Amino acid sequence: MTQMSKRSAVEPFHAMDVLAEATRRRDARHPVISMAVGQPVHPAPKAALEAARRALEHGRLGYTDALGTLSLKTAIARHYQSRHAITLDPQRIAVTTGSSAGFNLAFLALFDPGDCVAIARPGYPAYRNILQALGLTVVEVEAGRETGFTLTPESLARAAERIGRPLKGVLLASPANPTGTVTGRAGLKALADYCRAERIAFISDEIYHGLTFVGEEATALEVTDDVVVINSFSKYYCMTGWRIGWMVLPEAQVRGFERLAQSLYISPPELSQIAAEAALDAHEELDGYKAAYAANRELLMKRLPQIGLSIASPMDGAFYAYVDVSRFTNDSMAFARRMLAEINVAATPGFDFDPLEGHRTMRFSYAGSAAEMSEAMDRVAHWLA
Amino acid sequence: MTQMSKRSAVEPFHAMDVLAEATRRRDARHPVISMAVGQPVHPAPKAALEAARRALEHGRLGYTDALGTLSLKTAIARHYQSRHAITLDPQRIAVTTGSSAGFNLAFLALFDPGDCVAIARPGYPAYRNILQALGLTVVEVEAGRETGFTLTPESLARAAERIGRPLKGVLLASPANPTGTVTGRAGLKALADYCRAERIAFISDEIYHGLTFVGEEATALEVTDDVVVINSFSKYYCMTGWRIGWMVLPEAQVRGFERLAQSLYISPPELSQIAAEAALDAHEELDGYKAAYAANRELLMKRLPQIGLSIASPMDGAFYAYVDVSRFTNDSMAFARRMLAEINVAATPGFDFDPLEGHRTMRFSYAGSAAEMSEAMDRVAHWLA
Repeated sequence: MTQMSKRSAVEPFHAMDVLAEATRRRDARHPVISMAVGQPVHPAPKAALEAARRALEHGRLGYTDALGTLSLKTAIARHYQSRHAITLDPQRIAVTTGSSAGFNLAFLALFDPGDCVAIARPGYPAYRNILQALGLTVVEVEAGRETGFTLTPESLARAAERIGRPLKGVLLASPANPTGTVTGRAGLKALADYCRAERIAFISDEIYHGLTFVGEEATALEVTDDVVVINSFSKYYCMTGWRIGWMVLPEAQVRGFERLAQSLYISPPELSQIAAEAALDAHEELDGYKAAYAANRELLMKRLPQIGLSIASPMDGAFYAYVDVSRFTNDSMAFARRMLAEINVAATPGFDFDPLEGHRTMRFSYAGSAAEMSEAMDRVAHWLA
Repeated sequence: MTQMSKRSAVEPFHAMDVLAEATRRRDARHPVISMAVGQPVHPAPKAALEAARRALEHGRLGYTDALGTLSLKTAIARHYQSRHAITLDPQRIAVTTGSSAGFNLAFLALFDPGDCVAIARPGYPAYRNILQALGLTVVEVEAGRETGFTLTPESLARAAERIGRPLKGVLLASPANPTGTVTGRAGLKALADYCRAERIAFISDEIYHGLTFVGEEATALEVTDDVVVINSFSKYYCMTGWRIGWMVLPEAQVRGFERLAQSLYISPPELSQIAAEAALDAHEELDGYKAAYAANRELLMKRLPQIGLSIASPMDGAFYAYVDVSRFTNDSMAFARRMLAEINVAATPGFDFDPLEGHRTMRFSYAGSAAEMSEAMDRVAHWLA
């Protein structure tokens, strides 16, 4: 048997492992409530499903341009016009196979092996895992209370000093997973200015846009053109399983991204592109879902601390409660496993988001139904009592 | 503006550039016949479309297990039982977002930067481009008349000697793109034995299975378990735009692949998984399409040499004619561009497949309709005359 590579020794994405175990238990007829992965309980918008249905009538779905159909790119450009009053050339849009493809392409296109790329800790685990698999140096920068749970020019400068090497890239998510931090326009501008001055590539993950409950939801494009923006139809648009997202790129970088996308992805799924275009106009339906998340958020903000799980970060956007479980355990992985096995509530151990301090945190997604959220809180309360 | 990475300087996938230009011309109402990309003219099988339609009725499509649903994995395992009399544990199957994801995952999972990986020249360009983007050393091994247009232990040993370094991996496609070479069971066994003895990882690209016109269509799994098999629903199953494929992995490597897939892809598109499962039973419909390709193949084998474009390789499988254009040009890129601009026939310059000798070859895909193929031959004949 030949060996596997050293770089394949990345951490598991624990939320996906929890999802797999939850699926097995559900298939075995256990009454599982899944709060593990960031996945809306709602289907794609009606208009998206209807557009997909129409496309299935002829059924001829093929490769599109590697960076997506002009039709979808144009619709996404219109979205920036109407939502942010930003005029974008559709050719700066790159449609991707989910934001996952966006991260992979951005890391490949912008960085060479060994380059240092800063991400927030706690943060989305796939950043770290993809960066490592691609031979990049992950610089985890604490995003805690002192820095408003976000990255700042000062925290980045300190990190560069600590490692004794310049940063080549900075990736910030706003709203952020798992903390829910919303970094406003001023914060984004400070970061963009710092990155430009230091010749650092700036990547703005805006996948939770549309899901801001408190504060100002700005896109980095409002403050700079020198940024790679990554977004997706998975969260606000409820289209996780469709694997469809997009990037906005500096004009001069489009062709480089396209060359990589041609060979690595060929093109994003065509049916998903057709459905996504229709989803862009479904705000009424989607804002209704957002209102439901807001109610879930209220419920969790009230009940989790009562249960003894204090909220560890802002919860201003996205749909997660990141909680401190140190009153009950020093091993969040074991805690998550037992909670699923004993009361059929799936949530994600903090270790996914924070290799240093995640042993005493957990993330609960509240993108489920109100009834499920309430039932889950009851089960956890009873279990911990 | 920050710089792009050195590794993003991969070659374009020229076929995709031709496709993009063909799409632009078609949108501008030019009567384009596309023989550029390997894409069947037929829609997905009726049963696949119907399964997708049913799933859209509830519309709840989400993340699945990172390596695909158990249901699809089990169906794929059954396919190996019925077609090749091979019993596979479904847990050795990894469903992927097209074979593209399969290549990327295999290269990441099996090789570290600098490792030497052998591929056939001419061969599928994305192999070379992905390998380069991942920092691997591409060892192109000539697969010409002398070696039966395939790789052999002898040609691999000579290549290793030439570069003065051991090979860490070998990737062979059968049927092969663009040559159409079918490597039978004995050839696969010789390669597998050589790789095992030399501790080389063996990757078998079987994406054109189901499309063998001459010779014996064997899977590498018939001769070894120590192989990564890559396959897809894009070709025989007519599902390019659905971006869905699979791998068969050595049992001990499954978890390593899964960890990478979790972070890099989350999961393959769920609707495509549902449709693909139904496609596995659509042999009657799909074998009808295969018969149509066989007729196209006969047409091209007859007409291309008459026109002055001699066939440069076996054409035993897949759906490509790889031809010598040196009677007309020494620059296949310019030839392809002019052919599209002047007679609206899109085909792929050989440079995609062979950086050394591709300036005097072209690839024509014959997965289109009989009428289109015939019309294209007429146009090319008239144009070259």
